[in-house]
Amino acid sequence: MAQVIADRRDVDFVLHEQFEVEKLSKYEQFADFNKKTVDLIISEARNLAVKEILPTQKPGDEEGCTLKNGEVTVPECFHKIYDLLKEGEWVAMCDDPEWGGQGMPQSVALAAENYFNGANFPFILYSLLTHGAGKLVETFGTEEQKKLFLKNIYTGHWGGTMLLTEPEAGSDVGALTTVAVKNDDGTYSITGNKIFISSGENNLVENIIHPVLARIEGAPPGTAGISLFLVPKIWVNEDGSLGEFNDVVCTGIEEKMGLHGSSTCSLALGGKGQCRGTLLGKENKGMSAMFVMMNEARLHVGVPGFSCASASYINAVNYARERVQGKNLEATAKDAPSVPIIQHPDVRRMLLTMKTYTEGMRSVLCYIGLCEDMIKISESPEEKSKYQGLIDVLIPIAKGYITDKAFEMCGHGVNIYGGYGYTQEYPQEQLLRDCKITQLYEGTNGIQAMDLIGRKLGLNKGQSFKDLLAEMNNTVETAKGVKGLEGFAATMEKAVSKLAETGKHLTTAKSEKIMNAFGNAYSFLEVTGDAVMAWMLLWRAVIAAQKLEAGPKKKDIAFYEGQIKSAQFFINTLIPLTLAKMDVISTDDGAVVEISEDAFGGK
Amino acid sequence: MAQVIADRRDVDFVLHEQFEVEKLSKYEQFADFNKKTVDLIISEARNLAVKEILPTQKPGDEEGCTLKNGEVTVPECFHKIYDLLKEGEWVAMCDDPEWGGQGMPQSVALAAENYFNGANFPFILYSLLTHGAGKLVETFGTEEQKKLFLKNIYTGHWGGTMLLTEPEAGSDVGALTTVAVKNDDGTYSITGNKIFISSGENNLVENIIHPVLARIEGAPPGTAGISLFLVPKIWVNEDGSLGEFNDVVCTGIEEKMGLHGSSTCSLALGGKGQCRGTLLGKENKGMSAMFVMMNEARLHVGVPGFSCASASYINAVNYARERVQGKNLEATAKDAPSVPIIQHPDVRRMLLTMKTYTEGMRSVLCYIGLCEDMIKISESPEEKSKYQGLIDVLIPIAKGYITDKAFEMCGHGVNIYGGYGYTQEYPQEQLLRDCKITQLYEGTNGIQAMDLIGRKLGLNKGQSFKDLLAEMNNTVETAKGVKGLEGFAATMEKAVSKLAETGKHLTTAKSEKIMNAFGNAYSFLEVTGDAVMAWMLLWRAVIAAQKLEAGPKKKDIAFYEGQIKSAQFFINTLIPLTLAKMDVISTDDGAVVEISEDAFGGK
Repeated sequence: MAQVIADRRDVDFVLHEQFEVEKLSKYEQFADFNKKTVDLIISEARNLAVKEILPTQKPGDEEGCTLKNGEVTVPECFHKIYDLLKEGEWVAMCDDPEWGGQGMPQSVALAAENYFNGANFPFILYSLLTHGAGKLVETFGTEEQKKLFLKNIYTGHWGGTMLLTEPEAGSDVGALTTVAVKNDDGTYSITGNKIFISSGENNLVENIIHPVLARIEGAPPGTAGISLFLVPKIWVNEDGSLGEFNDVVCTGIEEKMGLHGSSTCSLALGGKGQCRGTLLGKENKGMSAMFVMMNEARLHVGVPGFSCASASYINAVNYARERVQGKNLEATAKDAPSVPIIQHPDVRRMLLTMKTYTEGMRSVLCYIGLCEDMIKISESPEEKSKYQGLIDVLIPIAKGYITDKAFEMCGHGVNIYGGYGYTQEYPQEQLLRDCKITQLYEGTNGIQAMDLIGRKLGLNKGQSFKDLLAEMNNTVETAKGVKGLEGFAATMEKAVSKLAETGKHLTTAKSEKIMNAFGNAYSFLEVTGDAVMAWMLLWRAVIAAQKLEAGPKKKDIAFYEGQIKSAQFFINTLIPLTLAKMDVISTDDGAVVEISEDAFGGK
Repeated sequence: MAQVIADRRDVDFVLHEQFEVEKLSKYEQFADFNKKTVDLIISEARNLAVKEILPTQKPGDEEGCTLKNGEVTVPECFHKIYDLLKEGEWVAMCDDPEWGGQGMPQSVALAAENYFNGANFPFILYSLLTHGAGKLVETFGTEEQKKLFLKNIYTGHWGGTMLLTEPEAGSDVGALTTVAVKNDDGTYSITGNKIFISSGENNLVENIIHPVLARIEGAPPGTAGISLFLVPKIWVNEDGSLGEFNDVVCTGIEEKMGLHGSSTCSLALGGKGQCRGTLLGKENKGMSAMFVMMNEARLHVGVPGFSCASASYINAVNYARERVQGKNLEATAKDAPSVPIIQHPDVRRMLLTMKTYTEGMRSVLCYIGLCEDMIKISESPEEKSKYQGLIDVLIPIAKGYITDKAFEMCGHGVNIYGGYGYTQEYPQEQLLRDCKITQLYEGTNGIQAMDLIGRKLGLNKGQSFKDLLAEMNNTVETAKGVKGLEGFAATMEKAVSKLAETGKHLTTAKSEKIMNAFGNAYSFLEVTGDAVMAWMLLWRAVIAAQKLEAGPKKKDIAFYEGQIKSAQFFINTLIPLTLAKMDVISTDDGAVVEISEDAFGGK
């Protein structure tokens, strides 16, 4: 039977053949996660995703969320699967078992998340936000805060959110105006209005713990005066029992393009002066706490983006094998039969485009997960710092580049279905609508591009970006020695070298013509992302070529050959455009910054 | 006050400065359309669009269509604006006044359509389909058919549709199975099921005239045996009065990603054996009749696609001027104020991208309209044939390239709003959803690409494509002599020359490696489209530079400078990628066709 959501063969390839995650089990931290266990985890996640969660995708979209008297009702079918998610302990896969986590490698967890997110991303968002809130408590909370909240969060018993955005403080977090006033008992009274709060109010859980960014009375303006607070929906008494309603009122939910099953709430805090919270971390250090969490948050926006594309691809390839329409172009007989559309070159172009990006994305996300795992097991500070640097540089790719490409792939996924793709009879249009949000939140992709050239390019005096290039070159060197891949290796070597030059150019441009440099930020995100994709696809091709050479199982031959075709397609037909784009960046064309505001017209 | 839907200054620029449409009024056919009249028409269309139609955009999307007992109810607010459309005689702008048309130049009508479609594309689709049906009657109908139907159609009194698609006959029209059996009275009894019929049933009009593709009993298989019929919803008696219900039953309407206000119907014809139609045109010549209409139909899919992008752009630029968020990157003071996001380089990049494509699209659509007008006024068969050839070559661009780019632009239009763009509080997400269909119907854009290399590249022994290149080179030659544009002209000259080579390459490849050639069809559509955009933008820059040189009105300076910036942006930063893509096409990389079906995975 045809697969759905993700291609299990490819998931296994990445985990076991490209990244050999079972090697992690040699270390104490991951001793429980040998190959057999990893396979079991993926199979369980896949079963839950395919059998239980996927059937709720469409009903959840149709039913959506409703707000009545301050209470938000989620789609009815979400309750059962949320219980299953809790029972399976899927909320905190990688976290400390002491607090209800499973202690799993991140590289493995991401494969499970691929299935969950591809099955119903709006639903999974509830547990994703919950986990993020838990991580904040675990990282910055006092022992008391952890005891009061953490296990209930990590087990999914309580929900979690992140209260950051306000109407006039979106991308510019420093502009927020929510106020905290210290009380005699050490708590803070919180007053303010927050918007765009995913899961901000919902009837899946009996309590919701809101990390809230606010400004303590008298604190400095801008980001330097922002503190982080824990504000429960229902107050939690010292003995852990639930107290009174804490004056966090849902005043509205957004009607959106997609993500209908996920509640996006406006919350009024302290409208009756009764909202209290406790400080999480230190005074005025709220923004740095947020930055610590930023990598995790952005990675976990990249994953659902990718997962929508992964699901859209596998649906499209299944559809293209079954949908019969038109004759094969090579057929000459007048009565030649109509054929499945997978035989038509332009359909194959779209499918191969989707395949290569899906594969490249899956690999780079797993690679980032593996870097996180390596930090956990490494005992060398230098090594830890190197992996952290690689993660930091790759996060704008994982969030910005991947979600933009994912949306594009979901577009192809609709197009392959023709007019049917536009109807709600098939899942493709919902995947496109749901995927769109991943380009926008946790920092729009324009902001990811600014992060890449503004912070990441020069991180550790530029060493982290160099480390990334060196990793790419390692793969190039290996590929040079593999029969049939020499040409790809040569092109890739050129791309890596030109990427280094382009990075240097932008580093200089940043200090000389800052507006021009940032006008090129997005192009640089694109070319870096292209290079990372090509690197991952070449790496895959190396393994595939070696396996083919060694004599693979018969059932694996097509898969391995397909890996080489993906690399061929990307490196031969897309990387030349990347090289041209790098040349363009280096010309510093100033049209974007020179054009006057009036010249944009429309007045 | 800020403008909406389309920038009137730019509309006027295209009509009067780039294409000088008032020159058409020297000819008898268009004597009524001097500059004053043209301006009045545009102003009226714009008023109607902005004041009456635009306010129905969101309500129409929210209310959608409902089907009950075979009757489709359109959004309530559509009735008033449909009446206004009829009263203003906007349904048949360019058609013969004898039959209720206005006899307007197509170039002018397209500008009016920009406003209408950008205001509410799902609504305008009702009149668009109606006009298309009328055109079929006008072109292929007998005098009797014209008398019975045409005036009622062109005045919008009755609706019209096009019944082509069946569940197993989408892109492959020749596979259709609807049957026509000749009756003794000369009518045909029609039996079959059609799907995806826009406006197929609706309560805007008292009768609907369905042109239907069907196969006369015993006709040859495939497209050679398809005939066209006129099948009214309610039979029209010989005296023009309405007779009995003609057994055309709406059995379902599609739930779709967007276009909610437009009914997309499944129709059962002759379920009770009571459906009759009359032959339109000749037996078995239905497909060639459809092909005659194809240019008009595809042009009128390009227009709404473009119009969604045009509306999205002007919304985005207005929003970017008002939305204050973050500091100017060049500001050094710690307490520097937050600024409108139009000052941020990456927002400007998106805006300028949208601006250039919107302008290029507006120009090329008007150019096609002008070619149609020239055919009407020209008395030389050679000239007529040349213009027809230019239209034929440009149609895949107008439909395929423009709608793909339009969807991309609508994506930027959402992104510029950040998270707000994803909410239904703003029009951007609806424009994106509505725009998506334009990539799919009237032949998916993959089919447009096949049309370009399969039929159009070699049309008139390749002369038409050469004519297009010659037109581009005319502009290049002029630009060479304009101060400041020499560099753009040089790049453009290179692009035109390489496009000619790439066309030749594909012409050879088609006969040698047909699958490879068609695997590159879409890339060729892209590079041809890019070249056409650049041509139009360079043309605009030439005029703008000349006007600036001549000393323009003060209020026009920014506009003209903006024209030069558009050309600079497109030619300096995008055309280099186009050149690289042409190089890639010429390498004939075969990954797309070589990869085995199994290697796509997912089984």
